[in-house]
Parts: sequence; C-alpha cells; structure tokens
Amino acid sequence: MATPLPTITAFERSPDRGRGLARDMRVRWALEEVGQPYDVRLLSFEAMKQPAHLERNPFGQIPTWEHQGEVMFESGAIVLHIAQRHPGLLPPAPDAAARDRAVMWMFAALTTVEPPIVERSLAAVLERDKPWYEARLPLLDERVRARLQQLSAHLGDADWLDGPFSAGDLLMVTVLRRLESTGLLDAWPTLQAYIARAVARPAWQRAFDAQRAVFLAASGES
Amino acid sequence: MATPLPTITAFERSPDRGRGLARDMRVRWALEEVGQPYDVRLLSFEAMKQPAHLERNPFGQIPTWEHQGEVMFESGAIVLHIAQRHPGLLPPAPDAAARDRAVMWMFAALTTVEPPIVERSLAAVLERDKPWYEARLPLLDERVRARLQQLSAHLGDADWLDGPFSAGDLLMVTVLRRLESTGLLDAWPTLQAYIARAVARPAWQRAFDAQRAVFLAASGES
Repeated sequence: MATPLPTITAFERSPDRGRGLARDMRVRWALEEVGQPYDVRLLSFEAMKQPAHLERNPFGQIPTWEHQGEVMFESGAIVLHIAQRHPGLLPPAPDAAARDRAVMWMFAALTTVEPPIVERSLAAVLERDKPWYEARLPLLDERVRARLQQLSAHLGDADWLDGPFSAGDLLMVTVLRRLESTGLLDAWPTLQAYIARAVARPAWQRAFDAQRAVFLAASGES
Repeated sequence: MATPLPTITAFERSPDRGRGLARDMRVRWALEEVGQPYDVRLLSFEAMKQPAHLERNPFGQIPTWEHQGEVMFESGAIVLHIAQRHPGLLPPAPDAAARDRAVMWMFAALTTVEPPIVERSLAAVLERDKPWYEARLPLLDERVRARLQQLSAHLGDADWLDGPFSAGDLLMVTVLRRLESTGLLDAWPTLQAYIARAVARPAWQRAFDAQRAVFLAASGES
C-alpha cells in the first residue's frame, strides 16, 4: 500500500479568484520546491466554520496540514515543518547561523512586512464604503511604503534576502505579491525584480497552476 | 576569560512606561525561563534609526540578539532560537509532533492573534484625533473579540495551549497582555486566568522587573 500523501486544505472558491494570494499557495509552493506530492481537501466558507475543520484549526482558517497522524495549522509553521524535513528551503543544518537567519526572515515576512499589507487589503474589502476610507488610505499606504523601503534597502542588488533562496524568500514573496494590483511596488524596481525571480521558479509556477485550476473548476471557467 | 553573554537590544525609554509590553519582554522572559543570563544594550529612538542598529535590523526595531558572532532580529525568531538550544520551552526533540505544535502556536500568536490586537493599539495612538476614530473602534474590537472567542474555546479548562507550558504560551501571553488596559478581556475569564498563570511564573516576574527597572531609571523614578 502506498504511503498516504500529506493533505492540505484550501478554499473551494478562493476570494482572490485564483491569483495565488490565498495562504495555501505558500504551502503548495514549498511542497513543489522540495518535490513532495500532496492531496488537497477543498472547503466551502460554510465548512470552514464546522466542527470538523475547527478541530484542525480553532481559528477556522486554511491551510491546514495532515500527515501521518499529525495535524497542523498556520501556513508559516507548515512551511517551516516542510523546510526542516526536506533539503532545499533552509541552509543545511551544520550552518546553524545561516539556518537561523532563514527562519528569522520567515518571521520578518509574516510579522513585520505582512501586517500593514494585510491591513490595507482588509480596509479595501471591509471599509471601502465607509466615509473615512479615502482619508485613511494614505496612512495605510505610508505604513506599507516604510516597510518596502527598508526591505528594498536590505535587498540591494542581491538575488535573495540572505544567500541562497530559502523559506524566508518564499514567504516574503507571497506577502509582497498581495501588492501587485495596488501600484505600490512601482517605486521599488528592486522588489519587483525580486518577485519576478521568484515567480520564474518552476515550483512557483506549478503551485500557481494547481491553485488556479481549483478556482477555474469551481467557477465553471477553464 | 568568561564567555560573553548574549546581548539583546531594548528601548532606553519604553513607550509602554515599563509595563512589559515592548517586544524585548518576550526575549527576556524566554531567557529567564531557561536560566540564561544576558546583557542589554539600550537604544534611544534616534539610535534605532542609525546605521549601527540598521545593520542589526534593517527594519530599525528592537529587540535584536547578538551572541558568538550571530546577529538576529524578530522576537519570534529569537525566542525560537533560544527554545531550540535550551530545555524548557519546547517539548523534547524525540516528540517531533508535539514540538511542531508548540512552534505552530508561536506562529498562531504572532500572525493570527497579534495583528488585530496591534491594529487596535496603533489606532489608539496614531488615529485617536481623527474624525473616524470612535466610529471605527467597534470594528477593531470585533476583530479582536473574534480571536479571543476562538482562543478561549480552544483553551477550555486546560492550563496551557497544548500540553506543558511552551514558547507558544510565552508568545501568546505577551500578545494578550496588550489588551489588559482595554477591558476586552473581561468577557473571557478563561483567558484572564491563562494570563494570570503565566505571570505567576518566577521567570516572568524576573523579566518584568528587569525591563521595569530600565524604564524607572530612565525616567528618574525608582
């Protein structure tokens, strides 16, 4: 009998319309980078609030991870789990300092760079009809720009954040891609080139195509 | 010659007035839990923007970590670094699944629970004089409450998030404590008791006293 594959959860119909901005994309991309096949369980918004899913993730979000009796949530933790068990996403263990720095960039992506970017997206969805939306937008943009400027200055003319491509780059690029439709990246060609290098990776393309196929199937497009 | 201690950075004069809400508290607490002495380099807001500090952390924030030639930033990554090298903050390595779940709760604290809490704090500082502040506050509160309800439901009558106290609890408690002055925790005695259990730990108290002493010295109080 074949060993069961890891199973992740993803939106049955992603609100991003298949643009690869939902957080399952991170896990799909990590799995493609290391060459690990996987299964996907698709969930409706209704199903995400049901006990079966809350058992996997008490916050009712996707993605989750199930494999060999282990159940996890939090896309960052799942990517780290994959990166620690397969070569390719972290510097080899003997270089403990380099490995630490790659993990540090994972946290930087999700806790320093992502929050102002998500706040801006959330406001555009939840507060667009509020009387204050237009007046607040420059404040939100300014918080994002401050991080982009610092990140761009760090990156300079390097290809990746710290040596070879790592799980830190993987997460950072998924965070930055949320800005692609906003125009905010236009002022930082360094960051645009960084994203372009990442999405040119065959593993990114495979992950992108897989999540896009789910959206197209659900919407009757092809 | 004695081996140099790890050195962290912290605010010379913390904006929280010594209430232990700045992010150096997490690292101090982790170090106290594992019994690792440390040195502290205090920084003014001006110094945090200077090249010497941006070299440690391109985002210009505290805390940072320097030890045996390694330099790191991101409080979550520093706590994980400490937890992986000393017993007491993660389940022992042979129980890989339990260890994964503790790391998962670290990510949950910083990427699922903390963002709406920080947004609420930031609005109170940066937007209190804006005409929309009062009208937006219920939206911010509702986002926080949704997470508190889910977290409380998960915790139930357990002492800690997943088995024994871990770095996941440590980070979660530092996140929840930011709400102590807001009244939002009043509806969840489960979470109040969880925080109370954590701050009763001698390591928490030592870390709290150490950061408070810095603030009192800087402000000429005692």
